[in-house]
Parts: sequence; structure tokens; C-alpha cells
Amino acid sequence: MSRIAFLGLGNMGLPMALNLVKAGHDVTGFDVVPAARDALAAHGSAAETIGAAVAQAEIVVTMLPAGKHVREVYADVLVHAPAGCLLIDSSTIDVTSARDVASDAAAHGFVMLDAPVSGGVGGAAAGSLTFMVGGPEDAFATAQPVLAAMGKTIVHCGDSGAGQAAKICNNMILGISMIAVSEAFALADRLGLDHQRLFDVASKSSGQCWSLTAYCPAPGPVPTSPANRDWQPGFAAALMLKDLKLSQEAALESGAVTKLGAVATGFYQELVNSGFAGKDFSYAYKFLADLEGNG
Amino acid sequence: MSRIAFLGLGNMGLPMALNLVKAGHDVTGFDVVPAARDALAAHGSAAETIGAAVAQAEIVVTMLPAGKHVREVYADVLVHAPAGCLLIDSSTIDVTSARDVASDAAAHGFVMLDAPVSGGVGGAAAGSLTFMVGGPEDAFATAQPVLAAMGKTIVHCGDSGAGQAAKICNNMILGISMIAVSEAFALADRLGLDHQRLFDVASKSSGQCWSLTAYCPAPGPVPTSPANRDWQPGFAAALMLKDLKLSQEAALESGAVTKLGAVATGFYQELVNSGFAGKDFSYAYKFLADLEGNG
Amino acid sequence: MSRIAFLGLGNMGLPMALNLVKAGHDVTGFDVVPAARDALAAHGSAAETIGAAVAQAEIVVTMLPAGKHVREVYADVLVHAPAGCLLIDSSTIDVTSARDVASDAAAHGFVMLDAPVSGGVGGAAAGSLTFMVGGPEDAFATAQPVLAAMGKTIVHCGDSGAGQAAKICNNMILGISMIAVSEAFALADRLGLDHQRLFDVASKSSGQCWSLTAYCPAPGPVPTSPANRDWQPGFAAALMLKDLKLSQEAALESGAVTKLGAVATGFYQELVNSGFAGKDFSYAYKFLADLEGNG
Amino acid sequence: MSRIAFLGLGNMGLPMALNLVKAGHDVTGFDVVPAARDALAAHGSAAETIGAAVAQAEIVVTMLPAGKHVREVYADVLVHAPAGCLLIDSSTIDVTSARDVASDAAAHGFVMLDAPVSGGVGGAAAGSLTFMVGGPEDAFATAQPVLAAMGKTIVHCGDSGAGQAAKICNNMILGISMIAVSEAFALADRLGLDHQRLFDVASKSSGQCWSLTAYCPAPGPVPTSPANRDWQPGFAAALMLKDLKLSQEAALESGAVTKLGAVATGFYQELVNSGFAGKDFSYAYKFLADLEGNG
Repeated sequence: MSRIAFLGLGNMGLPMALNLVKAGHDVTGFDVVPAARDALAAHGSAAETIGAAVAQAEIVVTMLPAGKHVREVYADVLVHAPAGCLLIDSSTIDVTSARDVASDAAAHGFVMLDAPVSGGVGGAAAGSLTFMVGGPEDAFATAQPVLAAMGKTIVHCGDSGAGQAAKICNNMILGISMIAVSEAFALADRLGLDHQRLFDVASKSSGQCWSLTAYCPAPGPVPTSPANRDWQPGFAAALMLKDLKLSQEAALESGAVTKLGAVATGFYQELVNSGFAGKDFSYAYKFLADLEGNG
Repeated sequence: MSRIAFLGLGNMGLPMALNLVKAGHDVTGFDVVPAARDALAAHGSAAETIGAAVAQAEIVVTMLPAGKHVREVYADVLVHAPAGCLLIDSSTIDVTSARDVASDAAAHGFVMLDAPVSGGVGGAAAGSLTFMVGGPEDAFATAQPVLAAMGKTIVHCGDSGAGQAAKICNNMILGISMIAVSEAFALADRLGLDHQRLFDVASKSSGQCWSLTAYCPAPGPVPTSPANRDWQPGFAAALMLKDLKLSQEAALESGAVTKLGAVATGFYQELVNSGFAGKDFSYAYKFLADLEGNG
Repeated sequence: MSRIAFLGLGNMGLPMALNLVKAGHDVTGFDVVPAARDALAAHGSAAETIGAAVAQAEIVVTMLPAGKHVREVYADVLVHAPAGCLLIDSSTIDVTSARDVASDAAAHGFVMLDAPVSGGVGGAAAGSLTFMVGGPEDAFATAQPVLAAMGKTIVHCGDSGAGQAAKICNNMILGISMIAVSEAFALADRLGLDHQRLFDVASKSSGQCWSLTAYCPAPGPVPTSPANRDWQPGFAAALMLKDLKLSQEAALESGAVTKLGAVATGFYQELVNSGFAGKDFSYAYKFLADLEGNG
Repeated sequence: MSRIAFLGLGNMGLPMALNLVKAGHDVTGFDVVPAARDALAAHGSAAETIGAAVAQAEIVVTMLPAGKHVREVYADVLVHAPAGCLLIDSSTIDVTSARDVASDAAAHGFVMLDAPVSGGVGGAAAGSLTFMVGGPEDAFATAQPVLAAMGKTIVHCGDSGAGQAAKICNNMILGISMIAVSEAFALADRLGLDHQRLFDVASKSSGQCWSLTAYCPAPGPVPTSPANRDWQPGFAAALMLKDLKLSQEAALESGAVTKLGAVATGFYQELVNSGFAGKDFSYAYKFLADLEGNG
């Protein structure tokens, strides 16, 4: 078992840290919010500063909102962590920040992995997250048993930044295909085609996709999908927007052409600006269908 | 067994008609191209006019390029077909034309089904097409054994026009998701993320879709996909463009908002105008990747 | 002075016909709505059928809602109009219908012009419309004095269909640039840039356009613009949508790539479906700004 | 006359600095490229370091490629410039960087203006640039005579960052309207409508815009436009792309919905990736027309 410092004890971080405790690791947590520290301290232990949290750590795990927090926290970690400590950032952030911080870490003699997750708050609590990991092969091997305490699927995606890249590429496909399926159902409504019939055709044909068959945005065909509980998340539109913005920042910076990605980003921004930030991202269908209804 | 008139003996129609012959039906075919008539006559029989072809038919099947041909051919069929003859149009055409012609047919006392297919020339030859059928339940029941001689999956999608609607809704999802997957691979290239790694993550995650896992547009991950044979079709870009145009005509006419559908249509138009009409529609990836390479 | 049959006495057609009466022409009108016929009969004369209206005409002018009405009305006109009668269609319709009907007219021995207008109900009443005319040079010369009784600017755009083509190309630029200006103001809001300052810069710079300097969608900078009277039209969003749909039908049919045109069409469809069909099309800014405000 | 330090002596910076010399100012320049320093030293004087250049300055003017260079250079300037020195950044950069650096400057006791320009290399040489200025009113008043030595139009756009905001909002309108006009000409080609006829209609109608009437992307109608000299810039596609990327970064960060802006950005990225970075941005028309020609 390892001595682990866990920094960032929010909706995702806290249950992840608790799963590490449950697996027998010696976990010391830190968060800027005192109540979050207390919540971990009830099961593991908490420190008052980042420096104190990482001082004895063999492994540091971070779970933070955005690239700028990751930059700030590691500025502190890199001067306080002991030599040989393995650094794992599970935040979902832009590829450039991930690579910059990993490069700073290397300059300080540390090895760092980017290891963003999918699976949401439910997966964090259940210990069933998917980790997409970027960084050296041997560090990945070291991290694997630790990540396995928090997740079910651990994939090595390549060098530094590749974990972030894999996550935003996957989620760009997801964000687009959800709108595609929603447009198809909204068009079907206008053409008098029944939802279940469209589902029956497309789910067994070339239109098949996770957004349709596992998470159908129109109520009915897939009983477990958020559409059947008034589009309560699930995966909130605001979070999908965050991931799509990361994909578009990466495209702008790298010179990739992602036309559908750009239009999809604008679509979720519109959803969020219209007051539906907290709805599941499959609310895309309802948004289009309500538009139709007013026609 | 039935007496069947088959009108339209092109790349799709001829093998479909031959499968009807093989199944023991009494098939009389017609096409404006003499060579096409001869090709059928070698196995069944051919007529010199539409009137002669349908004169004794219990069932008429048509396989034509576009709505205007369907309108023209049925103007002729409706005055020559015997009472009680069942009309089946397997062309892929706009929903409005399908409904107009079915309505004309009804005015002449005929029942008509729209029954567009997917599966391409390969599926037509192998008798493994999918039929998406719109029209009355009992006519569907009558047609089913006949269609089963040409296809493997026969789905009743609802009233008149519902077969066409289901096909264009499915293919709109397909056309969009293929570009989505292609943009993701092109972005991955720019970010230094390996194709196989992205495939490994997305194929088991929320980005999973037929365009990725059955027909991957980037060479490598799916050995059977056209990407591994220089994007030879498969399903040509020009045909995907045709189907997307039908979806956009339906959207314009019905007032549906299909933003991604519109951008996707423009994308395949660009592919076609750039000289890639005959490439598989998954050439989307290569097109984006070549753009990238010139940067 | 000429004997003129005027078919279609709606919001546009009636004031246009009255201006012909005022100019001293001998006008006989027809409309399917009796009240519309009565309104003209008070000043000129009205007929009970198309046949009666055109029987003695030297010139026929039509002002109808869409291509299908033009096709229907001319099916009637072509069998009742006297030889040598000049046909002028001022409806805004698709280029294909315009060319088809002109070609039918030629087959019946008639010369036909397409002559759609801009300027709206206000311009129709004031006799200050712009006519964009397609058809033979000499027919244009004959028509010019008649059109001059209804409009101020009469432009010959080329052969049959060129008038319709010019109108939809112009209005596609207009529809797009109005959204462009609206997006710029909405972005300016988010960035804390004052409307008047942006106007001062852009109106004298490379962002200058009619949508900005003559018809500013944000209230304030241009006192006469609809934005200063709660976006009362002016030119209703539903009418802009109609014209953009014509541009997209032309693009789909001709194989032109009009990506911004396609997205703009979806945008006005969204406006219309959200209940703003009757607002001026410059409501684009308010729509985007309200979205922003909910963020 | 003032003692001015000019940092960044590239294609734009050098002619701007020379115009300051010509106006009688005492100019000391710096650039990382020795040849650029020598080019200024022939007329004014050059320093070997930023520190030396600014040590005696009453005013510092910077002209740098991107936000990160501005951040780096001002990190140096702020510790070497004398108290009371006015700082003017004429680089075109993102609004956030502009505001961050101005805020750092204020923390060091300096007043800073953002003052990006339009007018290109030609305007820099001729001293006819337009300056869009953000920052305090009194600092603007101080700067005005200095800027007037380099430009013809000097506009105060508001507080810090407002100059950058005005420039990207204007250029987003420009970038979109150029594509709109190009799509219209490409559609006109397909519809058989003559360029000059479309120009004659739209230039006097609601489609009028600078992109059409001052800089027509199709050869012919406007003799001075780059289209008549094989689209040699003028304003290169790569520079338009840079400005549109700034607009999209601002939209992503601020939560504005700029759908046409996003599609336009993808369009110029496609132009650049296809090898046309150095063509004028009005090459948009040629790119679409060549696509058409291959159809």
C-alpha cells in the first residue's frame, strides 16, 4: 500500500479519495474548502496546506476544475513533494497545460501522468471510472494498481498529454453524435415518423451509436436514459460544453479543422445560455423539439 | 409465387430482380436501357414498355434514381396496372414525392408502399438488403415474403412515407457521425495521439458508433473498412450526398432545424466537388488529414 | 398606356396594382380572395376568373406566394392569354420553377420575364420597389415603363431566371451579414465593449455593411432601424427564412457549397420556430443577446 | 516631441517606428533580430536590450506577434521603464492577455493602452493606419499626437481591452461577410448569373458591404481588389485566420455564441491548410469556385 496525497476533494475527488482509503492506502487529503477536508478526515486524514499534504507522499493525485488550477497547485507541489514521488493529474484540462506542467515536473525531477476520467460522480462513488492515461510506460505500470482502486478500465494512451487528447477526442465524437441523433428525432417528429420505429431501424443499422442505443435523447426507447427522468443528469450540458471547449481550444491551437465540433460547441453554449446548464446533455433533443413545437 | 413487374434494372435493380427470379417468382422487367432489359431477359423476361411489363402483374416493384423518375413512371403504371396490383417503390426519394405518388395511387384504387433499402450493390446481389417500409399494415404483410427474397431485414416503419423518412433520418446520423469520427482522428493526428489508442478508448466508451467500430475512416483499427483499400466504396461519397440532400430538403420543407445535418451536407458536397465523388464516404478522414498535412 | 391583367392582390400585389392604375394603365385584377378583388375594383376593375382577367391583356403581371402557385396560375394563363401578351412574374420563387414556367410559356408562344422585387410592403405602396429582371433584352425594354410605375430601380440581370438568382444571392449575403453583425454585438456585450464604439469603428472600416450602417440590429446607433421600435418589421424573419430556403434549394440542386448560407438558414428557422416569425429579421441580435443574458 | 522606445521592428513595427522618427520624435528601437535593429539605427537609434531601450523613454510602443510575446516583453519593460512612462501596445492579441498585462502595468504604477491597428503593411508605411484604443481617457489624449504620426484614424473604444475587442469584432464581421459574398458569387456561377450583374444589384441594395464594394473577391467588378492580381495580398488568409481565432478564443472564454464566426474560422483554417496561407483572404471565392469547377 502507498502513502498518497489527494488534492482537490470536490464532487469527484472526495469519493475517489475515499475509494483509495477503502483499498487500504494511507491517504492525506487537501482542499481549499474546510468542509471538504473534514469529509475526508472522517475516514483518512487531511492537511492544512498542500505542502503538508504532499510532504511524505509516494504518490500525489490531483482532481481540479481547470488548467489554471493545475498550474497553480503544481507550482506548490513541485517544491514540496519528496524526490521520487509519482504525480498523477486526473483533472480534465487542455492538452497544452497538461504538457507544460508535466514538463515543469520533469525539470524538477518528477515523473507525471495525465489521467483524466470518464464515468462521472456515479462512477467515482462506485469505483468504476475509466482512466485515460498519458505518460511514460513504467510510470503507468506503477500507477495502475492505484488507479484500479478508483476505476475499472485503465487505458494507456501514449506520452504526456495523450490521456487528455484521448478524452477530448472521444467526447467531441460524443457531443456531436448526441446532437445528430437529436436532430434525427426532431426531423422524424416533423415527418410523422414514430420514435420507436426510428430507433428500431437505426439501432440495428449504420446509424447505431452509443448516444442512440445506450443514452437515447428521446423518451421511450431506452428506459434507463436521462430522457425518461426529465433529462436529469447524467452528464450535464455544462460539462459537455466544458469538454467541447477544450477540443476547440486544441483545434485552434493545433490548426485542425473541426467544423462539426465547432457547431456542436456553439449548440451546447446556446443550451447553457438558455438556462439548461444543469440538464443532461441529451436535452439537445428536447431543445430542438420545443423549437419545433413553437413553429 | 407471384407475377411481378420490375421497373428499373440498374446496378441495384437488376440483381434484386434476379433474386426474385431465383426465388421462383414470374418476373417481367423493364428499363429504358435495352442492355438492361436483355440482362434480365436472359433469366426472366423483359417487356418493351412499362404498360406491357405491368399489364398482368400482381406486384410492381420500382427501383429508380430520383423522385421525378418515380413520378413519371407511376403516371404510366397507374393507367396500365390491373386492379388489385400492389405497388412497391424501393427507390430512395424525397418524402413528399413518396407521399404524393402513394396518394395518386390511392386515387386510382391502388395500394402503394415506399420501401427504400440500405446495403448497396453488395447487399442487392447477396439478397441481404434492409428494407424500410411505409404504408398500410396489411399491404406490408403481403409484401414481406416478396421483399424477403431480396433482403434479410424487413422493417415496417409506419404509414406512407415512413420508410423514406426512416432511411434519411438514419443516414443523416450516419453522415454526421462519420465526419465526427474523422474530425476526431484528424485532431488526434495534430495532438500526437495514436490512431489505435484513440480507437481503443472510443470504441469501448461513449464515442462508440458504427462509423468508428464497423467502418473506421482511418486505416488500421478495423481491417475490413474501406480505409484499408484506399477508400474504395463501399458507399460512395456521391450517394451519401444524395441522401443528405434528401434530409435537407425534408428539413427545409418541414421546418426542422438540422444544423449539423446542413454542415455535413456542405462537407460531402465539398468532397464531391473536389473530385472525390467515387471514393467511399469515409474518405472524410483522408480529406481532413490531407488538409492538415498541407498546413 | 397598356391593358394589364394583375393576378395576386395580396399585401404586395394590391398596392402594386393600384400604382399601375394611378399611372393611367387599364388594370383588371384577379385574386382567389373576393375581398382583394373588391379592393382593386374600387379603383380599377376585377374579374371573376383568371381567364376573364387575361383575355384582353397586353401584359400580365403576377405576384404570388410560391413556385407551386406560379405553376398553377400560368397553366391557366397560357391557355387564355391573347397572342403577343407579355408575361411578368414578380413573385419570389425558386430559380428552377421560374425557368420551367418561362420555358412552358415559350412553348405556347409567349415571352416571359421573372421580375422579383425588394422593398417590401412599404416600397410597394410608395412605388419605390427594386425590380430584378430576367429574360430577353427586348421584353425587358417593353416592360420597363410598366415596372417604373411600381418601382424606382429596374435592373436587367440576364436571361430567364436571372432575376430570381440575383435576388436570392443578394438576400443570402444580407441574411448572413445580419447574423455576423449580431454576433459581433453580442460578443462585444460579453467583452464589455460599448455598442456605439463598435459601431463607430466598424461603420468606417472593413466591417461596414448595410446590415450595420443602414439597419443596425442593436438599438441605438441607427435611429431608423427596427431595433429601436422593438424589432417590428421591416422585413420579417419569416420572409428572410423563405428567401434563404430558396437559396439553399438552389444550392442543393446546383451543387454549390454555401456553408454559411446553410447555417444562417438554420438560424432563422430557429428564430421562427421559437415564436419570432413576425419580428424583423434583425431580431437576430436580440435573440443572441437574450441567450447571453441567461448565461 | 517625445522620447519613444519602440519594441518589435518587424514588417509592421519598422515602418511605424520610421514614421515616428520622421515626425521628429526621439526613437530608440529594439528587436531580437539584429538586422531589424540596424534598419532602424540607420535613421534613429537602436538598443541591445529592452532595458536599455526603455530606460529613458517617455512612451513605450510595442508591436509583437502574439499574447505570449506581449506578456514576456512587458515582464521586462515593467522593471526597466522610468516612472510616468506611458505604455502603448499595438500588437493584435487576445483580450484577456491585453487586460492582464495592463493590470500588471497598473500594479507597477504604469498606465497602459491597447492600440491594435488595421491597414496592414501598406498603411504602416504610408502612416495611414487606423488605431483602435482601449484605456483611460487622459492617457488616450496623451497618446493621440504620437499615434497620429503613424495613423490617420485614431478611435477611443473604451477601457482597457476595448481596442482589442473592437478589432476582433470588426474583423469577425469582415471575415464572415467575405465568405458570404464569395458563396453568393459561387452560387451565381452555378445559376448562370453574371458577376457584374450580381455586383450591380447587390452593391446598391441590402447586400452591400465593404467585402463586396471595396474588395470584391470575384475578378472584374472592382478593379483595385486583389482578385484582379491573382489574389496577392492585401490581407493574407493566414492573418484573417489569426484574427478569427482571437474572436473564437474570446467567445469560448466569455460564453458568447458565434456560430457563423466558428464556421468562418474553420473555413480560413481549411484555406490555410490547403496551402493558401499567403493568398489574400478574398481567395475565399476562388477556393469555392474551384471546388465548383471540379463538380
